[in-house]
Amino acid sequence: MLLSGGLDSTVCTALAARDHDALLTLSFDYGQRHRAELERAASIARHYGAEQLVVSIDASQWGGSALTDPAIAIPEAGTEGIPATYVPARNLIFLSVAMGVAEARDADVVVIGVNALDYSGYPDCRPEFVDSFRITAALALKRGVEGRPVTIETPLIDRTKADIVRLGVDVGAPLHLSWSCYRDGSVPCGECDACHLRAKGFAEASIADPALA
Amino acid sequence: MLLSGGLDSTVCTALAARDHDALLTLSFDYGQRHRAELERAASIARHYGAEQLVVSIDASQWGGSALTDPAIAIPEAGTEGIPATYVPARNLIFLSVAMGVAEARDADVVVIGVNALDYSGYPDCRPEFVDSFRITAALALKRGVEGRPVTIETPLIDRTKADIVRLGVDVGAPLHLSWSCYRDGSVPCGECDACHLRAKGFAEASIADPALA
Repeated sequence: MLLSGGLDSTVCTALAARDHDALLTLSFDYGQRHRAELERAASIARHYGAEQLVVSIDASQWGGSALTDPAIAIPEAGTEGIPATYVPARNLIFLSVAMGVAEARDADVVVIGVNALDYSGYPDCRPEFVDSFRITAALALKRGVEGRPVTIETPLIDRTKADIVRLGVDVGAPLHLSWSCYRDGSVPCGECDACHLRAKGFAEASIADPALA
Repeated sequence: MLLSGGLDSTVCTALAARDHDALLTLSFDYGQRHRAELERAASIARHYGAEQLVVSIDASQWGGSALTDPAIAIPEAGTEGIPATYVPARNLIFLSVAMGVAEARDADVVVIGVNALDYSGYPDCRPEFVDSFRITAALALKRGVEGRPVTIETPLIDRTKADIVRLGVDVGAPLHLSWSCYRDGSVPCGECDACHLRAKGFAEASIADPALA
């Protein structure tokens, strides 16, 4: 389970814990400025008694994103096009590492909480990317050659944020532990795209955000 | 340029230096047991006056390969099937990071020295993997959405090892700096698959290996 500690991956972790055995959460210390995420990911993994693997890969070495380069400001919500918070090839890299881990550990399933409806417009959250990645990963892995490719599940890909909030409540996901804000304050900023999308989801689901309680 | 410090990527770096401007070499400290590779990669990058980027990602955290797990022995050359030196998803991960670096640095081309003729049978060296990866990467990146995907060049993919040796000599590649052995001694072991393939290449090209001088 690819677990960032955000809302979507927290709900997805709840689904993975419900549907699969022997859960391992995979999180990345990639030089992101909001360290809160990783602490939340650890708490969520503990909540489910999952093995937690944190892989370090310092994307600030090459930069190109507001999330890894302090010199690039986090934009307010609602900017046009692909925003400055886009991290080049992030999901491509994360899914690739997940494939390596899955093959090494003989895991049958990788779950990722990508969502292409209420999202920030990142190209590597789109279904066409994930579909193509499935094919590529099957060609890359020994398991693929052996005819038993690792399955990649994206249970949230076509859901609205409100749907995801409702689903999370239904399955008892620890939403109070999740962290969505792109900024690194002690409380969510309320103004970045991630805070905006999260607030929209809870508002449309008519549910109070337990992380703001 | 994805530069491991082995024979193939050294020859490929010579080609990249000949054919492209503003060379950056990308190497990985992935927990491999043969540290000699990384020292050689640094020397080769210096030889070409290239910027060198070394990215750390500790694949020994999940294991599954003789190259990253000291408990798994490096097999002798000639074992059947995909050997224990296979690192799950290695080229998938390396190429994915290369895509992130290329997009962040606005590089137009990524060069990788994969070879599917005189090779160890790794699935992620095959042309069908690279072809599929090109499609996936174009879908993952902002550059792909913008209609200017990063080109992935594999100039060695259908060459024999002897061809690669001859090509390396022709283009003046610093073959004396390259390191192929899977083991971590001070001199190549001569018995692993990598040593075996290298020796075969030099022998068939009727050229003495300058790294053994």
